[in-house]
Amino acid sequence: MATPVKVHGPPLSTAVSRVLACLIEKDVQFQLIPVNMSKGEHKSPDFLKIQSRAICRYVCEKYAEKGNKGLYGSNPLAKASIDQWLEAEGQSFNPPSSVLVFQLAFAPRMKIKQDQSLINQNHDKLAKVLEVYEKRLGESRFLAGDEFSLADLSHLPNTHYLVNATDRGELFTSKKNVGRWWAEISSRDSWKKVVDMQKHSS
Amino acid sequence: MATPVKVHGPPLSTAVSRVLACLIEKDVQFQLIPVNMSKGEHKSPDFLKIQSRAICRYVCEKYAEKGNKGLYGSNPLAKASIDQWLEAEGQSFNPPSSVLVFQLAFAPRMKIKQDQSLINQNHDKLAKVLEVYEKRLGESRFLAGDEFSLADLSHLPNTHYLVNATDRGELFTSKKNVGRWWAEISSRDSWKKVVDMQKHSS
Repeated sequence: MATPVKVHGPPLSTAVSRVLACLIEKDVQFQLIPVNMSKGEHKSPDFLKIQSRAICRYVCEKYAEKGNKGLYGSNPLAKASIDQWLEAEGQSFNPPSSVLVFQLAFAPRMKIKQDQSLINQNHDKLAKVLEVYEKRLGESRFLAGDEFSLADLSHLPNTHYLVNATDRGELFTSKKNVGRWWAEISSRDSWKKVVDMQKHSS
Repeated sequence: MATPVKVHGPPLSTAVSRVLACLIEKDVQFQLIPVNMSKGEHKSPDFLKIQSRAICRYVCEKYAEKGNKGLYGSNPLAKASIDQWLEAEGQSFNPPSSVLVFQLAFAPRMKIKQDQSLINQNHDKLAKVLEVYEKRLGESRFLAGDEFSLADLSHLPNTHYLVNATDRGELFTSKKNVGRWWAEISSRDSWKKVVDMQKHSS
């Protein structure tokens, strides 16, 4: 049996949960290694968040024949569509989403004062991005086409918090196509397992 | 002979020039198709910019055996390093760079008023990003390792304008490692050809 892949960090982190969902989809064994936040072992969070998408791509390339074989497409054209929506996630969806998740879900628990103008500004940005998604998801079942892919998966961590831990869930659930898409991708076994891991972590 | 790949849009656009540099590196024949800006054919510019990176990845996958074969790595680990720095470009480098390019190089020519606070804010953001690059480029010749890759290439369009059409070139040229890297990647034949195409377009 192969050595399990080591994943460093808390499953509550959106970057870590993105990688976990990918590993479970690909049926790759892994081991969670706790990271000592107080020692600053989790430096440069921006670059870590970037890495989660590069790690997911790597997992799909390295374990091409395991688990969900179509997760990162099976030909250059399918890959190109997935890459395009992975970039939409990283560059257009993630920036406003992660600000809202921090401001609305984490800041109150950490007793950090919320920045209302930052919240409003990013709410509007996310709303505009989701208009493009609504149109796209009226044309195809998933973002990159007819199959669930890494592009959809990459949206799970932030959307999960927005829908379940903030008052902005309506941005997703009130939209016909985005709502249907979210219901479908969030009920995949792989993501349910990640949510379970989040519940059982401190 | 294969039909040339059609590239829609002006070579002065950073998104178009990124794709052109990639096609030339890969020795793939292409044909430039003019886009009528006044007819709104270039809608959703944010999504177009995203697409240029997805198109570059696609070109490398589809023409794996042509031209520069290592441009997108030749094994999953090399690809992962390239992906990581491609994401750094898209998510950390591009946002402040493209604001500075627009504000400092294009706004004056288009008689658009410059926004000084936006300029200052993005100058500081870019300076911080380049500190990480300076450190990285002290460890390896190129961003993803010892070979020129898609990750370096993707930085060419914005950096070219910052160095040659704004007063912020020092951000790059004054840094030992970043300066050396920029001198090397900007003098590649492929990029020189793109710059020539820019000069000969209206």
